[in-house]
Amino acid sequence: MRSHYCGELNEARIGETVSLCGWVHRRRDHGGVIFVDLRDRDGLSQVVFDPDRADTFALAETLRNEFVVRVTGLVRARPDGTVNKDLTSGGIEVLAHELEVLSAAKTPPFQLDEHASVSEDVRLRHRYIDLRRPEMIDRLRFRSKVTNTIRNYLDDNGFLDIETPILTRATPEGARDYLVPSRTHPGEFFALPQSPQLFKQILMVAGMDRYYQIAKCFRDEDLRADRQPEFTQIDIETSFMNEEQIMATTEEMIRQTFKRHLDAELGDFPRMTWGEAMRRFGSDKPDLRIDLEFTDIADLMAAVDFKVFAGPANDAASRVVALRVPDGASLSRKHIDDYTKFVGIYGAKGLAWIKVNDINAGLEGLQSPIIKFMPEAVVKQVLERLQAQTGDIIFFGADKANIVNEAIGALRLKVAADLGKVREGWAPLWVVDFPMFERDKEGNLNSLHHPFTAPSCTPEELRANPDQALSRAYDMVLNGTELGGGSIRINQPQMQSAVFDLLGIGEEEAQEKFGFLLTALASGCPPHGGLAFGLDRLIMLMTGATSIREVIAFPKTQSAACPLTDAPGPVSAKQLRELNIRLREQPAAPSA
Amino acid sequence: MRSHYCGELNEARIGETVSLCGWVHRRRDHGGVIFVDLRDRDGLSQVVFDPDRADTFALAETLRNEFVVRVTGLVRARPDGTVNKDLTSGGIEVLAHELEVLSAAKTPPFQLDEHASVSEDVRLRHRYIDLRRPEMIDRLRFRSKVTNTIRNYLDDNGFLDIETPILTRATPEGARDYLVPSRTHPGEFFALPQSPQLFKQILMVAGMDRYYQIAKCFRDEDLRADRQPEFTQIDIETSFMNEEQIMATTEEMIRQTFKRHLDAELGDFPRMTWGEAMRRFGSDKPDLRIDLEFTDIADLMAAVDFKVFAGPANDAASRVVALRVPDGASLSRKHIDDYTKFVGIYGAKGLAWIKVNDINAGLEGLQSPIIKFMPEAVVKQVLERLQAQTGDIIFFGADKANIVNEAIGALRLKVAADLGKVREGWAPLWVVDFPMFERDKEGNLNSLHHPFTAPSCTPEELRANPDQALSRAYDMVLNGTELGGGSIRINQPQMQSAVFDLLGIGEEEAQEKFGFLLTALASGCPPHGGLAFGLDRLIMLMTGATSIREVIAFPKTQSAACPLTDAPGPVSAKQLRELNIRLREQPAAPSA
Repeated sequence: MRSHYCGELNEARIGETVSLCGWVHRRRDHGGVIFVDLRDRDGLSQVVFDPDRADTFALAETLRNEFVVRVTGLVRARPDGTVNKDLTSGGIEVLAHELEVLSAAKTPPFQLDEHASVSEDVRLRHRYIDLRRPEMIDRLRFRSKVTNTIRNYLDDNGFLDIETPILTRATPEGARDYLVPSRTHPGEFFALPQSPQLFKQILMVAGMDRYYQIAKCFRDEDLRADRQPEFTQIDIETSFMNEEQIMATTEEMIRQTFKRHLDAELGDFPRMTWGEAMRRFGSDKPDLRIDLEFTDIADLMAAVDFKVFAGPANDAASRVVALRVPDGASLSRKHIDDYTKFVGIYGAKGLAWIKVNDINAGLEGLQSPIIKFMPEAVVKQVLERLQAQTGDIIFFGADKANIVNEAIGALRLKVAADLGKVREGWAPLWVVDFPMFERDKEGNLNSLHHPFTAPSCTPEELRANPDQALSRAYDMVLNGTELGGGSIRINQPQMQSAVFDLLGIGEEEAQEKFGFLLTALASGCPPHGGLAFGLDRLIMLMTGATSIREVIAFPKTQSAACPLTDAPGPVSAKQLRELNIRLREQPAAPSA
Repeated sequence: MRSHYCGELNEARIGETVSLCGWVHRRRDHGGVIFVDLRDRDGLSQVVFDPDRADTFALAETLRNEFVVRVTGLVRARPDGTVNKDLTSGGIEVLAHELEVLSAAKTPPFQLDEHASVSEDVRLRHRYIDLRRPEMIDRLRFRSKVTNTIRNYLDDNGFLDIETPILTRATPEGARDYLVPSRTHPGEFFALPQSPQLFKQILMVAGMDRYYQIAKCFRDEDLRADRQPEFTQIDIETSFMNEEQIMATTEEMIRQTFKRHLDAELGDFPRMTWGEAMRRFGSDKPDLRIDLEFTDIADLMAAVDFKVFAGPANDAASRVVALRVPDGASLSRKHIDDYTKFVGIYGAKGLAWIKVNDINAGLEGLQSPIIKFMPEAVVKQVLERLQAQTGDIIFFGADKANIVNEAIGALRLKVAADLGKVREGWAPLWVVDFPMFERDKEGNLNSLHHPFTAPSCTPEELRANPDQALSRAYDMVLNGTELGGGSIRINQPQMQSAVFDLLGIGEEEAQEKFGFLLTALASGCPPHGGLAFGLDRLIMLMTGATSIREVIAFPKTQSAACPLTDAPGPVSAKQLRELNIRLREQPAAPSA
């Protein structure tokens, strides 16, 4: 029906007769002539209706925004002074000979260029209008192209695209599982997968050697701004490769993707141990576009008569750090108060600071609510260790290590953003050498990843020193976001037993929870490992979208509902009966 | 860890030192030497352990089937007389220098080459063993490659890969929906999509222009041998294309796929109207590899004094057909009895037949239980119309048209298979010009496809003559299997109203059932249409697999269960409480 997309017409077509199909983006009547900006997936073209052609002109007078039309006409240069340099087609217009109204349109609930003033709920309810915005079409097109590049990279590297089930078994704890009642097995349920983890390991045991899948995953959790109940993972698993090879292969995949679609050179990704990342940035996904770093000063504070610092300085589970922020001395009291509230979100009880107004003026050159509690010598040592300069502000964190890391880590990002200290561009890295375990409040060991993650030591060493044991896990981090993560898995029963023992999982419990995987692992299991990337997150980063909902065609709201289809919805008693379930008479209070 | 895959070694590598990783497929001890067939994704290589290397030999003595090992050794020519021409690596063997046991294996529940003697349930329960069979790996690899070709074809043709939700709204009738209770919306449910139909139409309204998705779809129905509760569709929708363009684009996709992966030339697909297909083959998915055709003979039978034929011959809703089968006169009485039972499955009350032992001998040359009921002249006319030959058998069907079509249509396939009358190769075609409606027993009109399918006439013509109206639907058929089907959709409210009126769907009901789609259609809806292919079915046909479960990594059984993971399974009372549901105390009897 069309000869060209609206967005592809340019001066090279002048003199040609073309046919365009699209939506009336805007209509203006000017000087007895009707101008229509016609819009399709690729962009806009200006169409001119001249009263000389009476029938066509009369029909054009009926056009309103969002009508769907087909136009045939002559491409000609725009008159001088009316050229629009922002559009590919800005130098030309189409003089309409024929017009066909393919579909009328009710007045849309909002105009496309007014979407910003409309609530997200309204936009999601009328998603067929909202998706017409060029930036939404561009994002979905970008997503499609990136996905295709990734698929072809993996295909070219011998990975097989293998589908794993959506209707599967509930995970052992079951928390966060979406459940599906079975009609044929009364009283029993399927669960939607939180990830294809078990299946991809089974595929390795089955000898598939290299697997990938762009897989839908599901998690029924209370949604933060950046989460969706269903999300998409680039899921990868390989056999007979070590972590170096897996990292090299997937790093190259991301490098090629950025080169091809953003013309960005990511270079070789640096490696950082988890220990170093936590020490320098308080985060296992540090944003390396920001130069600000933590400096540990517990040793300097251990003996001061200021309990806020001395207490944590003398507690092995705590940390005392300083964060030097160049040019921060200009921050107002109001800013600092806001930051104090901000770190409170992460559990920090306050925010100590020193402004360095003049580094050469001794205590006189400093401004701070806390230096009065500290010996001058200590203050001097701190300034020296930090290599403080005139104009700096120094923030302090002193608390349990996790509170300091989270609070000052978040502060680092916020201050850098506020002061324009976030470099442009891309800062990827690998974080490696994670601990195998963390201890909960009761002192019990828990897996930092999952119980199939392999440690980088022998089973004997693991048993002897679990707190120090490192795993063969790796995370890819980009601009402070975890893009993906994975690990080498355990493929030896002795090692698996050691891990289960340390986690307090007995043989019976292990069989009950992981029975079929354990049987598989004992049936000739190759060394294997893998990785999963969050596709939604990757596209969000690459397109600069501010919400994950902007890179998903039909996202759910934060209460896990779809305003477009009104899902979820009620179902009939007959259906429930067939599924052998009833509603509870008094619904429990929803947890979100 | 490896330098080569086992399956890629050949004479060109003689003299090289290689490293292989894989599974012990078979071990033989012969002449003081140990031979191991090492297996990986790509094939087998023979590894030789010589007692000269005592340590390696001692370790090799511990090897058992399905152990995972790494071997380094020298490629050498096999001795004369031991070359295996069936294997790529059949001319060489690897003299092992080093052996590493990467993983021991319990004795597998069945040997790979004995899978045929094992029940499918056992094979599915130990799918990690079953998938090691080379033909299973090959099928999944083939599926991955075909999928990639299709994706690239669609990407190259401007189709965007857009994901649609898995957690969505129940369909109006709700039958066959898998339901998912919502935790955050007590008493409400999501449904898993039976297809992305509504979403892909919404994407057209949104201006995405060309959409595709390889989409998981779900249907909770009683499973026939060839169905799965979750299945995969190649789902396509386009705007501003008519049916010719959609058929041309998708036909080329299938043609390129067959050329690339099977080196098969499908040529141009013939077109056949639904009417012709039903008349000649009694089927809307005729297998054109079979030359046998129906011949209508109602006109000849209308006046005979044989009610079995004369009754249907004088009833407009019935059919009387003959199926001439060359060489069928050799069929035994036992065969014919079996066929009579077979057509009974489809509701036929019997199976009349004539064997033509000598076409030149008049009635004497015929053998039949029915000719005694018919005038000789009629028998002669039948033989003439059929151009019967010596050696033929002629089968007859006389009943309601749908029974005749199904019974004699199925008989046509069965007899052809039994007599070797199915041509080798591929016989694709398009079936077009389907009726818009069919009438149910009460005489009400029902959509043959779905109520958004566009007719090939005006709304006025449709209302005037709904029984004769044809739709703009099209099915792609290959070797008697429907590979895919689709249609141009209605994009005009007047047409949609006409269809709803004819279906007896009032405005209120239409709003309740299809509200958001109708609103979208009235918001500037381009002409659009699409298609969906069954990917599992396509791969099954292309690989010659006999069951859909052979082309899916983790299929469900016919009772919709997964023996590997034991899904579905019980869940805790706490989980049910959180989801605001209870189990019924007395489960209804399962319907399957």
